[in-house]
Amino acid sequence: MAIAAVVFDAYGTLFDVQSVAAATEAAFPGHGTVITQLWRLKQLEYTWLRSLMGRYADFGTVTRDSLAYALETLGLPATPAEIARLADAYDALSLYPEARLALEALAPLRLAIFSNGSPPMLERLVAQAGIAPLLETVISVDEIGAYKPDPRGYAHVEARLGLAREQILFVSSNGFDIAGAKAHGFRVARIARLTDEALRSELDAAATIDPMLMFKALRMRPERLGFTADATIARLTDLPAHVRA
Amino acid sequence: MAIAAVVFDAYGTLFDVQSVAAATEAAFPGHGTVITQLWRLKQLEYTWLRSLMGRYADFGTVTRDSLAYALETLGLPATPAEIARLADAYDALSLYPEARLALEALAPLRLAIFSNGSPPMLERLVAQAGIAPLLETVISVDEIGAYKPDPRGYAHVEARLGLAREQILFVSSNGFDIAGAKAHGFRVARIARLTDEALRSELDAAATIDPMLMFKALRMRPERLGFTADATIARLTDLPAHVRA
Repeated sequence: MAIAAVVFDAYGTLFDVQSVAAATEAAFPGHGTVITQLWRLKQLEYTWLRSLMGRYADFGTVTRDSLAYALETLGLPATPAEIARLADAYDALSLYPEARLALEALAPLRLAIFSNGSPPMLERLVAQAGIAPLLETVISVDEIGAYKPDPRGYAHVEARLGLAREQILFVSSNGFDIAGAKAHGFRVARIARLTDEALRSELDAAATIDPMLMFKALRMRPERLGFTADATIARLTDLPAHVRA
Repeated sequence: MAIAAVVFDAYGTLFDVQSVAAATEAAFPGHGTVITQLWRLKQLEYTWLRSLMGRYADFGTVTRDSLAYALETLGLPATPAEIARLADAYDALSLYPEARLALEALAPLRLAIFSNGSPPMLERLVAQAGIAPLLETVISVDEIGAYKPDPRGYAHVEARLGLAREQILFVSSNGFDIAGAKAHGFRVARIARLTDEALRSELDAAATIDPMLMFKALRMRPERLGFTADATIARLTDLPAHVRA
């Protein structure tokens, strides 16, 4: 069955989560990198833990809570208002440079986002990047109240698009999301901006494994969860050729 | 209502997960620390992710998969048999030095373990530490097929002990486990072997934040999940006084 729609993960796939580092460094000079890594690592942990506990709270809450955790860990004082202001950096993430070109080239197909972000966060994120006209719809886990990789999320995407699962190509850089999408039966393309070989070279060359490298080691590799992507591609701009093939 | 039973988390609370470092270092000299940290971080991620995906596999499988992930990340070759042998280090974890004394001092109360470990893993773990005679029972998440902090686990502990939740004191060092136990309504004591102040001093003094320190920053602090322990105590041997108070 031919691919009728391409559904993208947002954070880490279309948008660079590392781009909050400018804001964290400006707010806490000398601490930007470690705040950025602890924040993102804990942000995803909280999505998994809250889902597992049956205590869903939207991604805005989780994003503020995980930032508060990171700052508290480092002993950096911040008021709730300062935390909320810094957390807004997640609504202003940089679009990966090749993302617009890739979306434009795929335009004959139906294009959508499926993301952990709350609807207002995703609206701001997509608007500031100027890609709203390229997307048919933006689907949030908030519509089902459980984070990725809860299987209900992927089933919801299928229902929202009204397509058979084999007609949907799901695109993500996140290992847990790839496993969840594949477990549901989507076709899945992994965007691997960092190859395993490149990561190993970095690890071999490093005198010490710093938080940024630890993040890469933990979150930029395929997961061993029993499901793997159908294809691994290096850049979003390789997607049109992949869809045609 | 008086406390009738004390239920302990195993990994990280009664048993030192860092004690696998001797085995990882012996197997891969120069890489012991980073393997140990990646392994434990990923091991818990996989418990959360598999539960969320509805794809439970027992803790032996998760322990081997997460070790395989760590070794593969670092480019360290190992056969499945070698991985299985090294993973057995989790069945030989060191009991924290004060744990036996604490269990003996609490002995008039009913004592149990509630753990992510599979029944065979927990049997070996408890046997090699020689604490089986001090415990009334060992309860595994395997009995319900979902990892902590799934609420069904804590409800299962309550049912297994046949007590009201207020009669159960749950003891853990793991932030996610504390949140899960408290969400269920147990009384909860957090064992804080590392205070926030000590962690901050370590972070302030460190030229670089290495994987061990990153582990402490991510996993040895209370979590922001909406639930906090009733008491935070430094050592297991402080528990008897806490129970009397």
